[in-house]
Amino acid sequence: DLLRRQGLDWALFSDPASVAWLAGYVAPVQSGPSPFVASPPLLWYAGGAFTLIVNADAELDELTLPVVAFPGYRFEAPLAGPAEVVAALAEAIGAARPGRVGVEAGALPELLAAALRATGATLVAIDGLLLPARAIKTAEELAKLRRAFQLAEVGQAVARNAATVGQREIDVWVAVQSAVEQAAGRRVPLGNDCVVGYRQDSSGGWPTTLPLREGDALVVDLGARWAGYWSDSCGTYYAGTPSERQLVAHRTVAEALELAISLVRPGAWARRIDAEVRRFLASAGHASYAHHTGHGVGVTSHEAPRLVPSSNERLEAGMVIMLEPGIYWPGESGVRLEDAVLVTTGGAERLTAHDKGIVTLAASGARPEQMLRRETNDERR
Amino acid sequence: DLLRRQGLDWALFSDPASVAWLAGYVAPVQSGPSPFVASPPLLWYAGGAFTLIVNADAELDELTLPVVAFPGYRFEAPLAGPAEVVAALAEAIGAARPGRVGVEAGALPELLAAALRATGATLVAIDGLLLPARAIKTAEELAKLRRAFQLAEVGQAVARNAATVGQREIDVWVAVQSAVEQAAGRRVPLGNDCVVGYRQDSSGGWPTTLPLREGDALVVDLGARWAGYWSDSCGTYYAGTPSERQLVAHRTVAEALELAISLVRPGAWARRIDAEVRRFLASAGHASYAHHTGHGVGVTSHEAPRLVPSSNERLEAGMVIMLEPGIYWPGESGVRLEDAVLVTTGGAERLTAHDKGIVTLAASGARPEQMLRRETNDERR
Repeated sequence: DLLRRQGLDWALFSDPASVAWLAGYVAPVQSGPSPFVASPPLLWYAGGAFTLIVNADAELDELTLPVVAFPGYRFEAPLAGPAEVVAALAEAIGAARPGRVGVEAGALPELLAAALRATGATLVAIDGLLLPARAIKTAEELAKLRRAFQLAEVGQAVARNAATVGQREIDVWVAVQSAVEQAAGRRVPLGNDCVVGYRQDSSGGWPTTLPLREGDALVVDLGARWAGYWSDSCGTYYAGTPSERQLVAHRTVAEALELAISLVRPGAWARRIDAEVRRFLASAGHASYAHHTGHGVGVTSHEAPRLVPSSNERLEAGMVIMLEPGIYWPGESGVRLEDAVLVTTGGAERLTAHDKGIVTLAASGARPEQMLRRETNDERR
Repeated sequence: DLLRRQGLDWALFSDPASVAWLAGYVAPVQSGPSPFVASPPLLWYAGGAFTLIVNADAELDELTLPVVAFPGYRFEAPLAGPAEVVAALAEAIGAARPGRVGVEAGALPELLAAALRATGATLVAIDGLLLPARAIKTAEELAKLRRAFQLAEVGQAVARNAATVGQREIDVWVAVQSAVEQAAGRRVPLGNDCVVGYRQDSSGGWPTTLPLREGDALVVDLGARWAGYWSDSCGTYYAGTPSERQLVAHRTVAEALELAISLVRPGAWARRIDAEVRRFLASAGHASYAHHTGHGVGVTSHEAPRLVPSSNERLEAGMVIMLEPGIYWPGESGVRLEDAVLVTTGGAERLTAHDKGIVTLAASGARPEQMLRRETNDERR
């Protein structure tokens, strides 16, 4: 439909996210581009039908759409090269003489663009055309996302226990990663941050050798890709006993998160939720965090809608969005808590149930009755 | 020099391996393409000088070459898009009016190709131009490779101990991965295979939930990327006590590996080493393995020279090559052993010291005096 509205009967998709969303084929990423795979997957669209163009070794599982393969790994012969990808594209096009062809110009190799032009086709850039449609999830996508969120929660539970005095960021990270991959039974692409509070940019970054000392906070922002779909989550855990100031900040962020969730409903402006959450933290005396308040997830780990000041998007039922307020004292400590919600016709359904560090706080002597109380939160507003 | 010989004063490199090799900049890969990075890194060459075009958040460490940045992550504004990458390319080109511009057509986005053409430039495909030069390693590259091989050996040592009855492929894998990343103090891209002997394709694949049973072999083919350079290695470990047939096969592959190493010297034909090793295993009654005998490593995990039947390459001093003969009984068991060597003027210097499963065999009751004896090997030839 999107293509037809552009007057396009042909298109070649080359962005891996587009191919994943349209065709369900997802290539592994953890080791970078394979030296045995001559091209990322491509998806040829012609008059209502799709053909996947992919290397012969690709694991296609239960995919049912037509496939044209270029050679996979062959030890007997030179590795497949660009010419063999061009030949596979020509096979997918067949006898058709495409006129205007939609292409993702930011992701289409010049070699394939030239091959298309050589057929007499005119290339029309359609980069980003799918993004708004991708924001609304189908039941099939939701099932994959729910499994991805379960994996993230497995990791968060391990992070909470692993964040002890003397452990380094990387030690906690590998414990988390191991648990997620053992639960999944396979390798799982993972993001996002594992940073001790006193790290200079305490809001984000991959794990280093910095150790957790008594009272240090550890922000663990974890996303896991399952069947091509990315989850996300964030908890903040403490080595030893956090300070009263950290406890108050943690509680305040938990309240900010509940506020954010309470504002989610169809028709809500994304930028308004962003502004309300920042205002709530400002009223509690905290500087505004230098990141988004939230974002969509799907075949990418950050997509529409973006909950940021510049957004012109409104929430719609079927969107899956992350909400992740934080308080940071650079070089000293930080806290960020993040949940996922599905936008429903009635408001929001929480998709994550991890405790984000609350249990740890309760065990450390915090006043659990003051944590996450919606009444308190509602009174303040 | 390579460009000058092509009569090219300008070039735009867009293959991440080319950018890593020429500029030393390596982007993370483990989570796939970042939604915050509008383009992979690019390298603009103009009359002897390079300019790196990269997102503003890239970690450039001690890189000294000129950089033009397109915007990194900005929560306040829309994410940087293709137009901002095109603008960065225009800034790198400056006031020059390039004529013929070398490009990697298989890796250059059409959008940037169009931007180059709009300057009046003619694009000349130079895909693969750097490959032969990349095969000979500099001292700086060797230092990075040695560190990468050390990391692989850390993983192999852990794999040997983790391969016990009841463990699944994925359990061994996460133990290996954790040890490598803890040793490195950071996340490390890893490949290649972790397969129990009875898996249908026992030569390769990522770990699954298949368990190790008494007597099962586990092939662990492990590469780790350090500072952009890939190591490689393979050992075969046994849960419980291997059979006599497995022991003999293991010993035979160890001999085949020693034979391969003994054939390495400057001027040796890659395809001759491949053929000799296959002949040795055939003379011992084994079917030829359906993979290469070896390959180069560097900024990619498989590169020139390839030790395969179709190769027309000769070894040269300064090459770093992997040697990895194997014996496989599909659905039953398999063994592959792999070492790295530096081709020296005098022959070969071994770059890996992991035991590849020999110690395990000795502990299990094998006759260690018959393992890896060069004399035996020499007598046979």
